Amino acid sequence: MKSYLECIPCFVRQTLESVSMVSEEESVREEVLRSVLLDVSSMDLSDPPPLMGQRIHRLIREKTNILDPYSAVKKQYNQAVLARYDRFQSQIQNAADPLETAIRLAIAGNIIDCGAFADLNEAAVKKSIESALNEPLLWDRNEFRKAVDDAESILYLADNAGEIVFDRLLIEQLPMEKITVAVRGYPILNDVTLADAQEVGLMDMVDVIDNGSDAPGTILSDCREDFVKRFHESDLIFAKGQGNYETLSDAGRDIFFLLKAKCPVIARDIGCKVGALILKRTFAAAPVAAEI
Amino acid sequence: MKSYLECIPCFVRQTLESVSMVSEEESVREEVLRSVLLDVSSMDLSDPPPLMGQRIHRLIREKTNILDPYSAVKKQYNQAVLARYDRFQSQIQNAADPLETAIRLAIAGNIIDCGAFADLNEAAVKKSIESALNEPLLWDRNEFRKAVDDAESILYLADNAGEIVFDRLLIEQLPMEKITVAVRGYPILNDVTLADAQEVGLMDMVDVIDNGSDAPGTILSDCREDFVKRFHESDLIFAKGQGNYETLSDAGRDIFFLLKAKCPVIARDIGCKVGALILKRTFAAAPVAAEI
Repeated sequence: MKSYLECIPCFVRQTLESVSMVSEEESVREEVLRSVLLDVSSMDLSDPPPLMGQRIHRLIREKTNILDPYSAVKKQYNQAVLARYDRFQSQIQNAADPLETAIRLAIAGNIIDCGAFADLNEAAVKKSIESALNEPLLWDRNEFRKAVDDAESILYLADNAGEIVFDRLLIEQLPMEKITVAVRGYPILNDVTLADAQEVGLMDMVDVIDNGSDAPGTILSDCREDFVKRFHESDLIFAKGQGNYETLSDAGRDIFFLLKAKCPVIARDIGCKVGALILKRTFAAAPVAAEI
Repeated sequence: MKSYLECIPCFVRQTLESVSMVSEEESVREEVLRSVLLDVSSMDLSDPPPLMGQRIHRLIREKTNILDPYSAVKKQYNQAVLARYDRFQSQIQNAADPLETAIRLAIAGNIIDCGAFADLNEAAVKKSIESALNEPLLWDRNEFRKAVDDAESILYLADNAGEIVFDRLLIEQLPMEKITVAVRGYPILNDVTLADAQEVGLMDMVDVIDNGSDAPGTILSDCREDFVKRFHESDLIFAKGQGNYETLSDAGRDIFFLLKAKCPVIARDIGCKVGALILKRTFAAAPVAAEI
């Protein structure tokens, strides 16, 4: 997905919020903000938004020498969701449709996104999770099951800390032996790295790899070669969150995107309301004759 | 008041909102937004925010050839408040304290600010007006009355369309013969010009002058000489709204600022909550011995 003009005020806002979180020094904040304004003024709008996000957060790390500004936030959300892991697991197991419940929770957990919400708090997350079972979700169970059954290998691109506990709960409902989970290569916003996969116990269940990149999405040209190979060789891909949607919606692979549409630009691109739960496949199954 | 880093995301947001209101052409929106990003990247933060506002809106006018983008909005709010003029006038006349009621309404009317609120709507205005009588307002009636009584000439700097009807209602409670109302010299946002003063009937009541400037505030160095002379020769000044506060809070004159503190930056500068009703005098009366 390209960047839209509406992304630009958001880049500027996010820059100031992020650098202010990391540095008390007005001069550092000002230097970063001015650099980003200059950079954005000549940015190529055909690039996906996470490319500018990557540049902004690289600059913040460079100017502040703080390599993982969201470290505490990531731990907080991993632990907060882990503390309720048993309860969510029971909820899924006792549901009339465990798979749909797990999918809904995994999408609802995508609200834990410090890029979209600087003022993220546990109350908002709780509300998103609690309402996840009653919100509209367009999906075709048979098509989904068939895609999973037909695939020999599934690559699951995780997104944010905290959210990754819900990914684990969904993965438990899928054929785990087929699944490889991929995380970001380096800290960026509250996106997951190997440390988060370890913290929430995913390492003991499935293969976990990192993509070698510090973008808040999956910019294939910036990822490590073995990840890109795996991306192209996997039969099916699950991609969580806005950043992965923005960077892979035109990748030409069979991808199920699972996300909450948190901003008007994404919602317009998808054709849904802001806040909607989205399960969207790039290669929708061709309608069979009887359905036409 | 200087500009703060927090003003910068607001400049960028306001630019896109304003140019999008005026032009459907993506290329025009993009050109304006990129120009503003570049301009803001090197702006002097010691300038008050309305200076950048002036530059942004000059650029929008220049690129779109639309000289008064907010013309319809100004008319809408002037007429909406005028339609309720008799009701507000009765409310003031029947109040236990007509002056305080008129002051509260005049401040509450400052919510009609398209710079602060792109999504301004009549429901929000109604709410602000209705709650104005019950919100805290720090003022000293005796000090206010004495300042008005002692002054031989009062300059009243108006701010926005719609709001100016409330200014008229307040002016009716003051010694009108002492008062000159000043408006902006050219259209800028939904700020008032001579046309608005005419439309709401102020011209028939008091002297009305324009300041010769197209800034959304009062930048003295940008105003016409006769206005500046009047500004310095008036015994007392009333200044409505954020833009006038931002540009005149350090002017060294005896000014009563009347505004709603609509953004966190202003609220912090004043030391109040966002949304508060503010009546603030620059030259607070010196405490007399008995009060110390």
